[in-house]
Amino acid sequence: MATGRIVVYGGRGALGAACVNHFKSFNYWVANIDLNPNEKADFNITVPKDASWVEQEDHVVNELGNALQGQKVNAIICVAGGWAGGNAAKDLSKQADLMWRQSVWSSSIAATLAAKYLNTGGLLALTGAKAALEATPGMIGYGMAKAAVHQLTKSLGAKDSGLPENSLAVAIMPVTLDTEMNRKWMPKADFSTWTPLTFVAELFEKWMKDEGRPANGSLVALVTKNNVTDLIIE
Amino acid sequence: MATGRIVVYGGRGALGAACVNHFKSFNYWVANIDLNPNEKADFNITVPKDASWVEQEDHVVNELGNALQGQKVNAIICVAGGWAGGNAAKDLSKQADLMWRQSVWSSSIAATLAAKYLNTGGLLALTGAKAALEATPGMIGYGMAKAAVHQLTKSLGAKDSGLPENSLAVAIMPVTLDTEMNRKWMPKADFSTWTPLTFVAELFEKWMKDEGRPANGSLVALVTKNNVTDLIIE
Repeated sequence: MATGRIVVYGGRGALGAACVNHFKSFNYWVANIDLNPNEKADFNITVPKDASWVEQEDHVVNELGNALQGQKVNAIICVAGGWAGGNAAKDLSKQADLMWRQSVWSSSIAATLAAKYLNTGGLLALTGAKAALEATPGMIGYGMAKAAVHQLTKSLGAKDSGLPENSLAVAIMPVTLDTEMNRKWMPKADFSTWTPLTFVAELFEKWMKDEGRPANGSLVALVTKNNVTDLIIE
Repeated sequence: MATGRIVVYGGRGALGAACVNHFKSFNYWVANIDLNPNEKADFNITVPKDASWVEQEDHVVNELGNALQGQKVNAIICVAGGWAGGNAAKDLSKQADLMWRQSVWSSSIAATLAAKYLNTGGLLALTGAKAALEATPGMIGYGMAKAAVHQLTKSLGAKDSGLPENSLAVAIMPVTLDTEMNRKWMPKADFSTWTPLTFVAELFEKWMKDEGRPANGSLVALVTKNNVTDLIIE
């Protein structure tokens, strides 16, 4: 019998796949929601890329509901997202639209899933960005989308948000994650300041188990120095 | 000859129409961008409601470019928006999608217009909401959209945002505006705490003329008490 049930939104990305692996290794039932399946997950929900926001939500809600058959999940972890640069002078709406779909559609659909399927006391973790706490003139669409995720997190952590009792809504704000792609593109960077993916997966597991939880609705920056990651609550 | 040129995004709404009237009375050339024309404007751009974000941007950019024929504008004022309530337990993505279209599509398209057509030293004014500085669990989609507008404003006010030199990007954050509809729906409210539309239109005119400008990228709350409105910079 599984230890518990986890949903990873974006389980094909580097961090998402690390979460799938981590929870599978501890015998959890893991569902992956992404544009493509992750074969290590117990259950895959493939998001129809060209569908509207509401259509994507309906699809994901129905598929997960069918899989769960009335059972609840211990955690919903949304690590879907992407990055695009650009200021107001070039393709602003195009970039902002892409960022919105990748970060905000996924986060708000994860929030809907949490309202429907998360256990009392469960964890909903979203992914923000420390940079978006300030101006981001060189990546305007990205900053807007992440600012929306931050505000969503605060709302979900407040009274009467629609999430189950004693659940925790939280957003991590990574600086740079230690992924294969980042190592490929920034081979000369100082990796001792990058946050390991396993650290993040373990952090989610702790919060899920009600260990060291920050206040509901918190934005938690992950700041790594000399291979040690500090949690800084904004 | 006109005193100058103004673009009002949302010039059919209560505040937008007040801005159109105000600037027309001072002999400005005024363009209105909205789902429907405002017959008092000199030029109307009708936004195709069912078009995508990028299609709307292309349409508005081209139409305004044709009207201006190489001339620039003194101010772009985006007062388009809307309101919808709701938490994570019901239709979150539907409400958030609507709020995003009304507040963020319009604001980001206004930013693109500013990058292309605003004068050196001109004004780009957007519309945020004081409530969205904190959690908004009872109106999650609205809070997310306004938080994105706030972050957009900060980015636009920062170096290398793509806006013209010495321009001002600013967001007003009204609490309650003194509109006909608000009086109709809240007939017993204390109107002395509501902000008059003419106050806001005059404020835009001052900022446009470089009088009493807040720092670039500011969020400016409009707080009215005993019929006096204070500007509180967040």
